Parts: sequence; C-alpha cells; structure tokens
Amino acid sequence: MSRIDGRTPEQLRPVTIERGWSKHAEGSVLVSFGDTKVFCTASVTEGVPRWRKGSGEGWVTAEYSMLPRSTNTRGDRESVRGRIGGRTHEISRLIGRSLRAVVDCKALGENTIVLDCDVLQADGGTRTAAITGAYVALADAVTWAKGRKLVRAGRQPLTGTVSAVSVGIVGGVPLLDLRYEEDVTADTDMNVVCTGDGRFVEVQGTAEAEPFDRTELNGLLDLAVSGCDELAALQRKVLEEQ
Amino acid sequence: MSRIDGRTPEQLRPVTIERGWSKHAEGSVLVSFGDTKVFCTASVTEGVPRWRKGSGEGWVTAEYSMLPRSTNTRGDRESVRGRIGGRTHEISRLIGRSLRAVVDCKALGENTIVLDCDVLQADGGTRTAAITGAYVALADAVTWAKGRKLVRAGRQPLTGTVSAVSVGIVGGVPLLDLRYEEDVTADTDMNVVCTGDGRFVEVQGTAEAEPFDRTELNGLLDLAVSGCDELAALQRKVLEEQ
Amino acid sequence: MSRIDGRTPEQLRPVTIERGWSKHAEGSVLVSFGDTKVFCTASVTEGVPRWRKGSGEGWVTAEYSMLPRSTNTRGDRESVRGRIGGRTHEISRLIGRSLRAVVDCKALGENTIVLDCDVLQADGGTRTAAITGAYVALADAVTWAKGRKLVRAGRQPLTGTVSAVSVGIVGGVPLLDLRYEEDVTADTDMNVVCTGDGRFVEVQGTAEAEPFDRTELNGLLDLAVSGCDELAALQRKVLEEQ
Amino acid sequence: MSRIDGRTPEQLRPVTIERGWSKHAEGSVLVSFGDTKVFCTASVTEGVPRWRKGSGEGWVTAEYSMLPRSTNTRGDRESVRGRIGGRTHEISRLIGRSLRAVVDCKALGENTIVLDCDVLQADGGTRTAAITGAYVALADAVTWAKGRKLVRAGRQPLTGTVSAVSVGIVGGVPLLDLRYEEDVTADTDMNVVCTGDGRFVEVQGTAEAEPFDRTELNGLLDLAVSGCDELAALQRKVLEEQ
Amino acid sequence: MSRIDGRTPEQLRPVTIERGWSKHAEGSVLVSFGDTKVFCTASVTEGVPRWRKGSGEGWVTAEYSMLPRSTNTRGDRESVRGRIGGRTHEISRLIGRSLRAVVDCKALGENTIVLDCDVLQADGGTRTAAITGAYVALADAVTWAKGRKLVRAGRQPLTGTVSAVSVGIVGGVPLLDLRYEEDVTADTDMNVVCTGDGRFVEVQGTAEAEPFDRTELNGLLDLAVSGCDELAALQRKVLEEQ
Amino acid sequence: MSRIDGRTPEQLRPVTIERGWSKHAEGSVLVSFGDTKVFCTASVTEGVPRWRKGSGEGWVTAEYSMLPRSTNTRGDRESVRGRIGGRTHEISRLIGRSLRAVVDCKALGENTIVLDCDVLQADGGTRTAAITGAYVALADAVTWAKGRKLVRAGRQPLTGTVSAVSVGIVGGVPLLDLRYEEDVTADTDMNVVCTGDGRFVEVQGTAEAEPFDRTELNGLLDLAVSGCDELAALQRKVLEEQ
Repeated sequence: MSRIDGRTPEQLRPVTIERGWSKHAEGSVLVSFGDTKVFCTASVTEGVPRWRKGSGEGWVTAEYSMLPRSTNTRGDRESVRGRIGGRTHEISRLIGRSLRAVVDCKALGENTIVLDCDVLQADGGTRTAAITGAYVALADAVTWAKGRKLVRAGRQPLTGTVSAVSVGIVGGVPLLDLRYEEDVTADTDMNVVCTGDGRFVEVQGTAEAEPFDRTELNGLLDLAVSGCDELAALQRKVLEEQ
Repeated sequence: MSRIDGRTPEQLRPVTIERGWSKHAEGSVLVSFGDTKVFCTASVTEGVPRWRKGSGEGWVTAEYSMLPRSTNTRGDRESVRGRIGGRTHEISRLIGRSLRAVVDCKALGENTIVLDCDVLQADGGTRTAAITGAYVALADAVTWAKGRKLVRAGRQPLTGTVSAVSVGIVGGVPLLDLRYEEDVTADTDMNVVCTGDGRFVEVQGTAEAEPFDRTELNGLLDLAVSGCDELAALQRKVLEEQ
Repeated sequence: MSRIDGRTPEQLRPVTIERGWSKHAEGSVLVSFGDTKVFCTASVTEGVPRWRKGSGEGWVTAEYSMLPRSTNTRGDRESVRGRIGGRTHEISRLIGRSLRAVVDCKALGENTIVLDCDVLQADGGTRTAAITGAYVALADAVTWAKGRKLVRAGRQPLTGTVSAVSVGIVGGVPLLDLRYEEDVTADTDMNVVCTGDGRFVEVQGTAEAEPFDRTELNGLLDLAVSGCDELAALQRKVLEEQ
Repeated sequence: MSRIDGRTPEQLRPVTIERGWSKHAEGSVLVSFGDTKVFCTASVTEGVPRWRKGSGEGWVTAEYSMLPRSTNTRGDRESVRGRIGGRTHEISRLIGRSLRAVVDCKALGENTIVLDCDVLQADGGTRTAAITGAYVALADAVTWAKGRKLVRAGRQPLTGTVSAVSVGIVGGVPLLDLRYEEDVTADTDMNVVCTGDGRFVEVQGTAEAEPFDRTELNGLLDLAVSGCDELAALQRKVLEEQ
Repeated sequence: MSRIDGRTPEQLRPVTIERGWSKHAEGSVLVSFGDTKVFCTASVTEGVPRWRKGSGEGWVTAEYSMLPRSTNTRGDRESVRGRIGGRTHEISRLIGRSLRAVVDCKALGENTIVLDCDVLQADGGTRTAAITGAYVALADAVTWAKGRKLVRAGRQPLTGTVSAVSVGIVGGVPLLDLRYEEDVTADTDMNVVCTGDGRFVEVQGTAEAEPFDRTELNGLLDLAVSGCDELAALQRKVLEEQ
Repeated sequence: MSRIDGRTPEQLRPVTIERGWSKHAEGSVLVSFGDTKVFCTASVTEGVPRWRKGSGEGWVTAEYSMLPRSTNTRGDRESVRGRIGGRTHEISRLIGRSLRAVVDCKALGENTIVLDCDVLQADGGTRTAAITGAYVALADAVTWAKGRKLVRAGRQPLTGTVSAVSVGIVGGVPLLDLRYEEDVTADTDMNVVCTGDGRFVEVQGTAEAEPFDRTELNGLLDLAVSGCDELAALQRKVLEEQ
C-alpha cells in the first residue's frame, strides 16, 4: 500500500525543528511534521504557583492552542467564545504531563516554565509535534536558567528527553505519523509519548470505528516506539548545534 | 503483597449496579465500585444537534461531574467558577467516546441520548465506574426508545457492551481497580475500556512518576482485560433482571 | 377534595431523613419529601471568608443545585452554560439565610460550614426539603466540630432547629407540601421556614395567578406552621438516633 | 419613638413619580422614595421570546441593576465581573412577577415589554420603589402600544395596578418604608407587593436577627397594606395627569 | 446649510453641567449635550491597584456604560451578556486616558479615583459629553480629597482642565457636536479632547465612508478646538459656583 | 539625534511582507516591521452575518491577538482569562474599519472575509504592521474569490490600498515607526492609516505625557503620510509578484 504522500507505513513525514524563533522567549522552536507547524515557546519565571510555594520544587506546565485559520476551515477563537474547549484542555494537559515526566522539579528549584504551543498550520499530529518541539524549547530554557543561576550549579532539571508521535490503523494497516486525511479515516488512532530510552510516558489509543485487539495494539506500539526513537535522535542533533 | 483493603492485585472491589434510580430518566443507575458511587442517567430526546440534522443518524454524548463534597475536601462547583475544568472535559469526552463505540448511530435514528454521570462519592476510578454504569443506563434507555417506537422495529442501536476499569503500578506491583490511596501513589495509572468481547475501545496509560516499559504495559493490559470481562458479566446479569 | 396522591390538604408527604450518606462530609443527609430527594452535605473548614477574618465569628452558607435529569425533562448544566441561573441563586441564598437564623456565629468561632444541597430527583418542594435536610447535616457537622475542638467547649453554635415546607392554594383550597403537579396549578405558592419553637424565619408567598387576600394568607400560614412543627419533630427524632 | 428623619412609624418617605424621563422609551419614570431614586423605562417590542411564540400571549419581564456608585461605597459593575449576582437576579425576578400579576398576557397579544429599573441612588427600598415606578412606566407603554394598534382595540392588558413597600421591625417597633440605616438594623425585613384593591401579590419576610412571631407578622402586614394603598393613590393621580 | 435643529455648523448644542447629583459620590454631575445625558460620578478610595502599590502615585480610571434603553431601541445589558463589548472598552479607556492627561499622579498620592459615566439618554456624542462632565466630577472629588487631607497640603493633583467634542463631515460640510442623525450620516467622524489651554490630548478621526484629506482634517480640528474652548469656559464657570 | 537602531527620524524599519504563509487560508502573509512579526490570514466564506443577510453586501472584519510570549514577559491568554481585553477589542475594531475603508461591500457580494492578525513577536507597531499586512492577505483573498466566481465578473471589491504606520514624539523629536523602547518613552503616540492615494482613513493621536500642539500634530502627520506612502509602494510591489 502506498500512502497519499508516498511514504511507507513506518515512515515519518519530514520533521524539522528550528530553534531561536523568538527574541523574547527563553526557549523557542518552530517544529514541523510535514505541513503541521507548531510554534513553541518556553517562558521561565522565578517563583511557582501558590499551591507549590515553599516546597522547594519547580513547576512545568503547557498551553496548547490553534490559530483560528490553522485548519482548513476557520474556527472561532476560544478567547472570543469566552471558554476553552475540551479538546484544547485535554491536549494542554497531555503536553504538560509529558514534559514533567522528564523534569526533576526539585532540581529545577522554585522556578516555573510555561510551554506555549501555538499551532500555525495543522495537518494531523499537532499534539505530538507540540510535545516534540516543546521539549527542545524546554531544554533551551533550562540552559538559560542555569546560565542565570536560577538553577543551582550541579543540578540537572532534565532527567531525559521526550518525544511523541501518532500512529493509527487505516484500511487495516498500521501507519506511523498520520496526516490529516489519514487521521480522519483511521479506525484506531493512538498517540504515544516516549522517553529517549524507549520507555512510555503516555499511551492514548482510541477506537474511532472498530474496537482494536491486542495484536493491532502491539503493532501500533512497535511503530510508535520506532518513530519516537527517530525523533529523539533529531532532538539530540538539533540541541547539539550551537 | 496485601492491599489496604485486603484485596489481591487482580481483584475488583465489590461492584454493584442498581437500576431504576430515577423516576424521570429513561435509564438510570447507581453504580458503586467500592466506595466510589456514581449516579448515571440516560435522557432520550427526539432530534439531534444541528450539525447532525438530516443525516438520519442519532447521537450519544455524556457529561461527567463531581458533586462538590464527593471528595475528601470540598471543591468549588464548576457552575460557580463559571467554567468547566480540563479534567471534567476530558472525562466527559472519554465517556461519550466509549459509549459511542458500541452504538450504531444509523440504527438509533435521529434521536439523542445524553448520559449524565454525577459522582456522589469518590474513591478512585470514578471515570471507569461511570462508563460501566452508564452503559447499563444507556441499554435501558434504548429499550425505552424501542418501546416508544422512536427506534424503528428490527433495528438494534447497541452493537455490544462496554465496561471500563483502572489499573496501575503501585510499589512495582500491577494492581486492578485502584482505590484513591492506591491511585495517588501509583507510578503508572491506566484506564482501559473494553467491549464485552474483550477488544479495546480506549487505552489511556500515564506515567505519573517513572516511565513504564513494554513488560509493565503488558501486565497492566492483562489485568484490565480480565477486570473488564468480569464487569461485562455483571452488566449482563443486571440487565437480565426484570 | 382528595389530592392526586390521596393525601388530605393538611397532610405532608412521607418524609425521610437518612444521615451518614457520605463518608467524606462532616454531616450528610439524604432527605425525601415523597419523590423529591435532596442530597445534603455539610463541609467544615477552619477559617472564614476574607471579609470576616479577625471577627471571631464563623460563617454558614449554602449552595443549591439540581442534577440535569432531576426533573422530567433534562435541563442544561449551569456549569456548561457558564453561569448560575436566577432561581438557583435565589434558593441558595434562601437556604443559607434560613440556617444562619439558628446559628450563633460567635459561638461557632472562625469556622465555615458550607451546605451543599443537590437535588437528585425533583417533585415539588425541593427548597423546603433542602432546608429541612440541611439542618440535620449542619447539626451533625457542628457535633463533629465540637469533637475536634474547633468549637470551644461549652459553646453551642446552634440556637434552635429550622425546617421548611411549601403551601399553596390549588383550586381554591389551601394545601400543605405541594407535589409538582399541584405546584404548577397553584394560584398562590408559599414557602415558609420556621424555627422549632414555631416562629418565622422566612415567609415567601407569591400569587402565581390571582392575588390572595388576608384570609387566604392566614389559612396558608396555619398549614405551614403545623407542617413545620411535624418536620421539626422528625428532625429531633432522627438526630437522637446514634 | 421618633425615626431618624422624624417620620412616624406608619409614614412613607416623600414619594415622587416623574413621567416622561426618556425621549426614547415607550414609558419612563424617575421614582423617588426619599433619597432612593430609580430610573424605570418600559420598552415595547413586537414579538415574544421563542418559547412563547405562537401562543397568542405577550410577555412582561424586568431587569434591575444598581449603578456602581448608587451606594455609599462603590461596587463593581456586574458587566465587569462578567456575571450577575444573586441579589440582582432575585430582585429582577421579583419585579417581573409583580408586574405580570396585573397583566393579561392574552390581551397584550404577542408583544414584549421589558422594564429596566436602574438605581441611580440607593437609600433602602430600591426594589419596592422600582416596582411602584415600573408600574407607571408599564401603564404608559401599554397606552403607547394601544395607540400604535399593537394591542387590539377593546383589549385591556392591565387588570389592575400594583405597588410595593418595605416594612420591618426595628428596635421592636414595626416601621413602614425603611431607609438604609433602618434597614441594616432591622430584626425583620419584609417586602410586600399589593394590587390596587389591597390584595397580595408577593409577601417576602425575612428574619435578619430574631425569628418573628405571628403577631409581629400581622403588624407588619397591616403597615404594608396601608402603605401600598397610599402608593396606589399616587400612581393613579400621576397617571391621570396629561 | 441649516442643521436639523437649526444650529450653525460651528455651534454646540445647549450644554448643561449640574453638580451634586448624587448624595453618595465624592463628585457627581449630570451633563447634557442637547438630548445626550450622562450621569458621571467620581469615587475616591484610599489606596491604589496592586500594580501601583508603594509607588507613591495615585490612579484615575473610568468606566463607561449605556443604560439598555438609553438608545432608540433597547440593547442587551453587558452584565446579562456576561461580557463587555469592544465599543464600551474603547470608550472607557478613552475617558480614563483623557482625564489622566490633566492629573499629576504624584500629587494625588496613593489614592484612586474612579469615574463612572453612565449614559441615561443617548443622542450622539456620549463619549465627549462623558469626558466633559467627568472632569467636573473629578475636580469636585479632588477638592473633597483635599478637604479630607487625603491629598497633602499644597499639592495640586489637577494640572489643567479637559473637555471633548465630536466633529464630522456631513454632506461635505464640517459640523461641530454631532447629533445622532448627523453622526450616522457623517463621512468622517472625529472626537477631539483638548486641555483648557487648547492643546490636544486625543485626536481620533475615522473615515466612515470616504477617506478624508489634509484640508478636511484641518477644518475639523479648527471646529473642535473652538468647541472645546467653549466647553472649558463652561466647566470653569460651573466649578466657580458654590 | 540618532535612534537606538541608527535610523533617521523619518526612516521606517526594514519591512517585509511574505505571501503564501498558510496552505489553508485564501490569503496569508507574514509581515515584519523590524522585529515585530504578525501572521495575517484572510478567510473567505460564502454568506454574511445574520444582520446583513439579504442586503446583497459582503462583510470584512478582523481579529487581532498576541501570542502569550510575543512580548518580553509572558501574558495570560485571553482564552484562559475567559474574556477579551479592551486593547485587543480596540485594535481588532481598528483593523476591521481600516480595511473596510477600501472595500466596496456591494461589489464583494454576500461573502465574508475575516482577517486574523496574530502577533508572533512584538516590538512596537503591531497594529500598524497588522493593517499593512492584512491588506495584502485581503487582496489575495479577493483574487481567490474572483477565481472561484464568488465575486461576479467585472466587479472590483477593492477600491484602493491601505497601509498604516505609527509616529510619535520622543524627547521632543517626531519619529516614524516607533520600536517598543521608543514607544514607551514617547510623549505623544499616533497611529495613522492612509489609503494609497495619501488620504486618511484613521488618525489616532494620544498624549501619553504632555498634551501636543497643532505644530507637533502637523509634524507627525507629515511623517506618517510619507511612511504610509512607502508602505503602499511595497504592498504594490509584493502583490505584483507571481
């Protein structure tokens, strides 16, 4: 079977991670998974939310949003509607949890890092692109915080790397990194977040049409682990650049 | 290892599903997983939301909410805060998707069924209890709709049954159906939704502390499938009663 | 004249007050006035709202809400609509005022008790059932607070008991404790809150159709006082149980 | 006992009702009960809210609001807070119900009249002044609607007049038409709405401190009926003017 | 060309500024520009918003609002809609900025003055009437604050006076102080805020239909400066009265 | 005097307008005025808002927003706060009005074009960059609509071009196109919107510190007209490219 863009089932789209996309943010990235483009900024502030004050521990959180015309038809702004939708809430929480999985909050000290992931253009996999890009922005922000001595010398707030990818069963075939057209026709859709050493941070599989069995689940997990591994390699490469 | 309430790792809490808990709703259930108690009602209305009109297909959706003192310390009402929180949104969407996985919307015709799942008392696993109970309320509502000829004769809107259970790794040991105290100390927390024939509708695993590996994931899935199987048997038994 | 359920005009519906309905709340009650069922919890917290800090006085307040399918047709959740309706506001305020009428805030000390009254099933008289049940939950919460020494020894925060009942003129006849079908056809609808010694805390009479004269008002008050007296006796009996 | 402003217990404050205070509204009044000043406008529109369409009946409703500096200390605007408070809701509903008590919605036909009651200056009794003034604005709006043939010839949408006054027990003495200083020190506070023929539309009595007994209640009702009678005479006189 | 009300192009409508319109506010004014009537109150409180604490400087801000029936057809209340509209925001900010232009915040000390400008009746030019009236209320409030020693002796928080007027090109002719009918037919609409010495605080010109050229702009500015000058004279005269 | 970035007072920052920045939108542009970067998309939909239906005329509107970390310190998202701030409202309205000044709504027919202007990075002049860029996105969207025959052959919905620039007086010197550091220290700040033929669409001047006189105003207008002229030339050049 050949995919609409000619990829093999186990092939990622072209992925790019450009650092330094904002002159203001402590870390910033434009990440592209094919035509999906997400602008990720990491903002460091001293201090933590009230419920964490005095704990000696830091906090990392995320907010995800789509620009109104990032999709094929324009959507209303959530600011105009006056409330954040369920999907936005869900993805923001997923990104935050995923990044915290590789953060040692004690080592971070009482500092807060907010990751803003704004989708400029959507073509499937926006949440996984956001996690993958946000990790790099986070890493840059941590480096900045160390340089400013906000993080004590010798402490390492990051315990590993984290990346994410979507997988799904389309027409009976497990595919890696779904484009929008594939996503909407998938029977099963799964988002997998892995650490750089190949362990799972999140596994979220949903039967969109038919329920899936254990064999299908295993096939999807194999694809996802291999995709995350490739993304982790790219993250490392990008972060090694000056 | 013995659990706080003396259960074995693969043992559910005492589960009860009481039907007919409301004189108004077309289907209603009080479901208990140990001390977790959720009141589920199914409300049938003719017609569908605007975006579905004229499609000939029905719609099933869900709303989850916790009473303010269902938990150990009182929480603010979301109506008073003026907005629904991310967790509420996320769980409402999960319940809705899980039930739709066993609904044939064409067979349902242009009718809407809303499942309201209100947690009266929480002790871990409220979303899985809600799904398990809501299915029974939904089944009663579908029967009611057939009796009223809202569903055409010979059509069967339900394509199967659905139940859900939580699993998690606590102190290195995979456990089935976590109580609150187990849930907060779990390294990994997973909610699994299965159809009555043992296939997956949703798999949502989250590393709360340490990332988990493939072996741990498999152990959790085994436990969950067996727990859902037991719940499906109870659902069938309860629905066979007059 | 015989009422739809065979009661005499001056007869209450079967009333039950079950204590201990929540394992979390400091006081909790499921109160039924016939098919009207309200779940009342009393939550004690140390401290008071900001505007009362340093006064040495406590605070008692209430929040009323109806589950979406507590009524014959499903209502939207106020949390989903993003705002609390006028009726909900009005009843929450009424319950709070009614309970504070028998609370000595000085004796309570700087503690707050919140009464949550959630209607599980509605069949007329939800606000009066809520007040009657909430008083019992409050009494249990006060006992709990004394046991925890939050209330100083020898102080008695409760100065009496409080109960409430609805009355109305239906087809020219004054009736006690209206069911929903009676309520919607009443010319005049009145809610009366009395202390255990037969004095008035609130009298709220509304001409739904025809204005009412002084004689009718007196007839309604007589019925209400007698109904509240009966409810006060039940409250005492229930609270005497272990 | 002499009152702060030298009135006898059964004496109203100077009451004025000025018609024609707006060049836009179909009816408009500036009503003063002493220093309490409320600006009431009646707006007529053809058609009714959706839930009443096709019924052949009209609708009358009210909205009450206080200007931020109508009180001694400035209050936040409800528009700025983004939500309407419970007290505002409660009073708006009371005004609407009170006016509808003298409206024959069938005779009004499918027209809507909205009464806006904006408190310019508050000194106790704003809701009763609002009702008393709004009635006059409503009467003018009905006359306007008849002139425009919105109301069919020969139909009389108003079945009577309505006025309202507050009464209360201050220092053991029942007083008519409380000023702010009296209101805040009252043991019992009651608002009474009467038709021009002396019958009751609303009776809302609240024990602010001590519960009140039947004798006190009767004393308050006597005062209120007499006060409303005086206000009804003034309404008639004002409406007879050109 | 003669205007609908017979004025010459460079003529203001009859303008009145009545002081002392509220017994509660520290400064209050009812300002009329013809049929446009705005009620302005100035509320003084000790202390400043959090972001200004410790600065030694005061704060002056404004809130503008229209009563629902101040216009020809009734508008929804912003409190009911739950949000403030863009136009309201824009005008509130304009009034605040305009007044701050003549306030020496250091001299004011850590006090806050809020100007509430509520439009009772609208006939064009509500924002310019609001600014012109609010200045007088502000001046009275400052005098009050000096009397109470909130402002240190010898300090003068007001550095000048400020007034505002609208101008526009209607049918090719530049007109001063537009009425509603003129405003809606204007090609260009401009609001100009001047200090008493004839300098500009705000110039806001908008081409409603045709863009305007430099000559037209100059003509409008000439008219506006002359109108503001006349208004400044009236403000001085009014403030000199006892 | 030399400016912080070495420009002369009458010099624009480097301005770039990149078209085709979105694969979804009918027109899209990334516009930069120095470090200020705004992403503008134009979304065409058939049909118009309800209040314009049947008029035969189209509608053009705009929404402006800043990404949370487009500024030096992170701001809260308006979607999270649940309301749009005054500044956002004000700028959205300005952009919409400015573009409509060169749109012939009749020629556009009953189509709606929404311009979304999202600030990716802010360094002063975001609203003027937004207008300048949005015009180009609008022009592309109109071309698209003509290609799709949404606009009738021979009709020209655009009657001209529009561009905008900020000017201000800093340290007594009028400067063109202020950077953030200049903007915050300006005595007077003015935004000017011009058509391509040099006439004014909007003139918004504000005295941030000292009021400004007619001479200063004239100096600022001269600078602005010349800057807009240069921007109009760039717009034409960019639109001539394939």
